[in-house]
Amino acid sequence: MRIALDAMGSDNCPQPEVCGAVEAARKFGDEITLIGPEDKLREILSDTSSESLPVHIIHTTETITMHDKGRQLTLKAKHKDSKTTMAVGMDMLKSGNADVFVTAGNTGGALATAYFRLGMIPGVKRPAITVLFPVKNGRCAVLDIGANPNCKPDHLLQFAIMGSIYANKVLDIQNPRVGLISNGEEAGKGNDLVKDTYPILEASGLNFVGNLEGKEIFGGKADVAVTDGFTGNVVLKTSEAVAKMFTDILRKELMSSMRTKIGAKLAMPAFNNLKKILDPSEVGAAPLLGINGLVFIGHGRSDTQSIVSAIRSARQAVNANLINALNSAIKKRIEFIYDQEEQ
Amino acid sequence: MRIALDAMGSDNCPQPEVCGAVEAARKFGDEITLIGPEDKLREILSDTSSESLPVHIIHTTETITMHDKGRQLTLKAKHKDSKTTMAVGMDMLKSGNADVFVTAGNTGGALATAYFRLGMIPGVKRPAITVLFPVKNGRCAVLDIGANPNCKPDHLLQFAIMGSIYANKVLDIQNPRVGLISNGEEAGKGNDLVKDTYPILEASGLNFVGNLEGKEIFGGKADVAVTDGFTGNVVLKTSEAVAKMFTDILRKELMSSMRTKIGAKLAMPAFNNLKKILDPSEVGAAPLLGINGLVFIGHGRSDTQSIVSAIRSARQAVNANLINALNSAIKKRIEFIYDQEEQ
Repeated sequence: MRIALDAMGSDNCPQPEVCGAVEAARKFGDEITLIGPEDKLREILSDTSSESLPVHIIHTTETITMHDKGRQLTLKAKHKDSKTTMAVGMDMLKSGNADVFVTAGNTGGALATAYFRLGMIPGVKRPAITVLFPVKNGRCAVLDIGANPNCKPDHLLQFAIMGSIYANKVLDIQNPRVGLISNGEEAGKGNDLVKDTYPILEASGLNFVGNLEGKEIFGGKADVAVTDGFTGNVVLKTSEAVAKMFTDILRKELMSSMRTKIGAKLAMPAFNNLKKILDPSEVGAAPLLGINGLVFIGHGRSDTQSIVSAIRSARQAVNANLINALNSAIKKRIEFIYDQEEQ
Repeated sequence: MRIALDAMGSDNCPQPEVCGAVEAARKFGDEITLIGPEDKLREILSDTSSESLPVHIIHTTETITMHDKGRQLTLKAKHKDSKTTMAVGMDMLKSGNADVFVTAGNTGGALATAYFRLGMIPGVKRPAITVLFPVKNGRCAVLDIGANPNCKPDHLLQFAIMGSIYANKVLDIQNPRVGLISNGEEAGKGNDLVKDTYPILEASGLNFVGNLEGKEIFGGKADVAVTDGFTGNVVLKTSEAVAKMFTDILRKELMSSMRTKIGAKLAMPAFNNLKKILDPSEVGAAPLLGINGLVFIGHGRSDTQSIVSAIRSARQAVNANLINALNSAIKKRIEFIYDQEEQ
């Protein structure tokens, strides 16, 4: 298996990427190509005693940063001569020189680059950005969390199909439970989009478990939560912000007296476990669904372990032939619609 | 001042309501009328040595419960002979026998009852449910959190105007900062509704601070956060669910060993402070904005202190003559629109 890795994606790049690549190559035996400035990568690589491992470098100095937006981002994503780490990696996918591309960089940049260089799986109307949320007793794949601020029921149906296939093939969940994010758990609750989508999901043949409020999402009622990119993004940002506020206040309060400081020290294993359960690096990277090629996106805050875990998810998608599975699920669904129309 | 209080609203009713009424009457000297089953209320009241206080009872046995939905709820809310605690309380407002109505009951029920019995402030197109979020260094009033799953820019503008007046008059905030919940803080980010609303808020003369993501809301960037009822409800439910997951995991981890148990015991003051900062009873009740009468809704989980705090907010709204202020702000805005159209 050949994995292409954006060496310049994470907030602390390229250290986590280089060390993660080395550890993953050692662990899984895969061929890993780091994409980024050769000198810098070589320097970190030389400290890792990785001479015998199948870790390669493809040199480029261009990147897509968090500051790239609008026209400039489109140009970097689209132009055939673009040499950003993402463009180079996706071109490797396109030409068959890599099986999967992994990045911890700008999600919008990855989506745009993927859209222009790899295109869509035939029949898919909109690509979706997926993230894994830590929930009670596991994880929940939420999509779309930002690619499509305005959606139609058709789009949400395709997200549900793709999310279900992904949960099954990559997260190893039998018959994944699919829910619809809404402002009430009962059927009939929702805005127009949700109300129109509900009966379509109910009739879809998927394991549809109905509407999801926050307590159902985080209570682990579904393996896949489907929503438009605006709402999904608001859910993501809200949960991150609440978790941060909670942690900030707790930390401040624990440091406010000698007694609580000692208590905090003793209780440290509990805090560490809490952190581990809610840690993005433990939750893993997730794919851009609908793109005609395997692109996995990890958290910007990724450390070495997050990169290894992102590579683990990515290779599982390759092994499960995720793109083929998505392709035939979407095709089958289109045939199903044609059948219905003919009747 | 005459305050009408739904005695059967909170999860543990009527204990918190009766004790809260007594404490508030003692504290503020206001006349408080408890609405609910007289025997039950009288029994609790008799333990409070409140004979000399202006606490009255109006007897009714009907209530709106969490199970009331759809047609049944509408009937209870609308029918002229309805004797639910909410109908009785709002009829008191309507007939001038009370200045404000306070309930910790079913929000949808309160909204429906208010809508049918009190009507709207002239010119207001949609009523909005407001909640106060605990945020860094204070509170943020978020509206709408559920009355209107589908909104238009006009509605959001009115929410912004009403939220701003409320924050100024009741929360005592000079020139309240108003933001728009979106999937990105930059102007230009958003779904169609947000993109269409942004320039209207920018030109509104309000202290508009732009788009808000989770980190801006909980970071305290705005005093008022405006959104459609679907998104607002999702934000509310997501934050409650994340906070609950956080607390549940932390509690479980702290109880997992003798060492962490001792640590937790020592750190208890910090946990108590955290709880206090995030406690709904400390954050307070909020009004139904746009309704032609003062209706304040507190949390279902209200205890005695929450009821006292809800009454405190309610009486401040009466003192500030909130309905008049809303009335003239909406009227002024309508005149402003007419002026523009004439030009």
